[in-house]
Amino acid sequence: MTSQPSTHSQHTNVTVIGLGPMGLALAEVLQDRGHNTTVWNRTPAKADDLVARGAHRAETVAEAVSASPVTIVCLSDYDAVHAVLDSAGDALKGRVLVNLSSGTPKEAHAAVDWAAERGVSYLDGAIMVPPFLVGRPDSVFLYSGPQDVLDEHRETLAGMGDPRYLGPDPGLAVLYNTALLNMMYATMNGFLHATALVGSAGVSAVEFADLALNWFMPSVLDSSFAGQAADLDAGHYPGDAGTMEMNLNALEHITRTSAEQGVHSDQPRLMRSVAEQAIALGHGGDNYLAVFEVFKKASPAG
Amino acid sequence: MTSQPSTHSQHTNVTVIGLGPMGLALAEVLQDRGHNTTVWNRTPAKADDLVARGAHRAETVAEAVSASPVTIVCLSDYDAVHAVLDSAGDALKGRVLVNLSSGTPKEAHAAVDWAAERGVSYLDGAIMVPPFLVGRPDSVFLYSGPQDVLDEHRETLAGMGDPRYLGPDPGLAVLYNTALLNMMYATMNGFLHATALVGSAGVSAVEFADLALNWFMPSVLDSSFAGQAADLDAGHYPGDAGTMEMNLNALEHITRTSAEQGVHSDQPRLMRSVAEQAIALGHGGDNYLAVFEVFKKASPAG
Repeated sequence: MTSQPSTHSQHTNVTVIGLGPMGLALAEVLQDRGHNTTVWNRTPAKADDLVARGAHRAETVAEAVSASPVTIVCLSDYDAVHAVLDSAGDALKGRVLVNLSSGTPKEAHAAVDWAAERGVSYLDGAIMVPPFLVGRPDSVFLYSGPQDVLDEHRETLAGMGDPRYLGPDPGLAVLYNTALLNMMYATMNGFLHATALVGSAGVSAVEFADLALNWFMPSVLDSSFAGQAADLDAGHYPGDAGTMEMNLNALEHITRTSAEQGVHSDQPRLMRSVAEQAIALGHGGDNYLAVFEVFKKASPAG
Repeated sequence: MTSQPSTHSQHTNVTVIGLGPMGLALAEVLQDRGHNTTVWNRTPAKADDLVARGAHRAETVAEAVSASPVTIVCLSDYDAVHAVLDSAGDALKGRVLVNLSSGTPKEAHAAVDWAAERGVSYLDGAIMVPPFLVGRPDSVFLYSGPQDVLDEHRETLAGMGDPRYLGPDPGLAVLYNTALLNMMYATMNGFLHATALVGSAGVSAVEFADLALNWFMPSVLDSSFAGQAADLDAGHYPGDAGTMEMNLNALEHITRTSAEQGVHSDQPRLMRSVAEQAIALGHGGDNYLAVFEVFKKASPAG
């Protein structure tokens, strides 16, 4: 596709800064959807393919942000965001920045202050899919900050994926992103460690996955989580159907079996420790969800 | 219900030994389904309600196992199983024991030897539901050992829940049980820790659960696990769509954000350590599933 910018007049001009694998995917999708797309990258050659498809390569960051009302920023971290964009100087004023770089809530809050000082409208976001899924209508992008900025540029942003607004606190998008990835890794580790455990008796992953994923996990997700979130908010952990002490016994058993079978036992050992910490906080007669009270506090290790 | 044993002649007599909450639930369900049920417990008064419903209370373990061709054993551990059943002496000979007590694969193998010495047919099992769900047709009971014993008593066992046969290795039922619980705890901890993380910014568990459980988890289970079990069996971890080094960066970010937000950080710190161990094993360019290679080995700590 080598269509000219003039054929795209029905779409907002858009700029993409940062052409790593994710930035490239964003720019390509926006360009393909008919946006007059300007790009900038520290190493200009990264834009070669995009330019061949009709994108405009800006020589400077100032030129890049001046080319469009909205600039999508996709850099390695927030330090890079500040370093790169500060070089644009006054060209930033009155522009909209949508920052999809990964960072912490503190960094997102600092970026809001940074943007306010420069007269920039700032929306923070996080991408929940790998680069090859960018552009699909069910690929989720999380946003937080001023909702009017999201609403004004919704059509452009929706071209990259499904925009979900989390609230005015600008730190929410990166925080949700971090929390969800956290949950994903813990769940994967749970499956992988369990697979290693049955593997110690010669059970294949394919065989175990059939039972574990087709039957067990859906039933756990239905029965253990659904409807219990309100109890977490209320700090209400009735132990009628099973206490933390009983769960500690189960975790002790899992730890012992892991060691006995010669597989890694750090993960069950940590889960056992968390249950012990919950009991030390006075939750021995409460149900397992009371480990939430442990997780809400900083670790002794910091 | 106070129906007499004589009305139950179409069902096999059955004995239940051990009347903790689970044993009570098993005996109650079997009695209600019309089995002539004999029970024994160290503290006889635990059987009072069952006797009022028509069950027979045996005075001795020998009397209990003699009353039925099949005896269900539900004690706290395998040591208790041996201690209690050894008191039955020759009465055990020719009987079928279905041991639903929790234990390790080694203990299950030792129980098979113990049973063989006494001329007992031995089936090992594990109950995948809490007591209040015993008796439902979709409540899963795992079994391993001689399949002919399961087949012969399938009708009786199916009264307690859905019997699933895992194979002739008698250790499989307790091992699967341990592995599945392990996965459940890891998954719950992932959700609870993630909920604590967003909670640090004032997000309620109800709000987070909606996104995390209704959208994110199903998509993770679909995309991250499905079809990848064969790669685990093959030790095939292509890093084309993301390497362990990239995942280590993400886990470093999760750990840092947890500490910065003042929530517990032991769990992400351990996940980071596991990824580091995978890299130390040479999997830095492989995908995340290569942590399976870490989990298959004993922890340095033992």
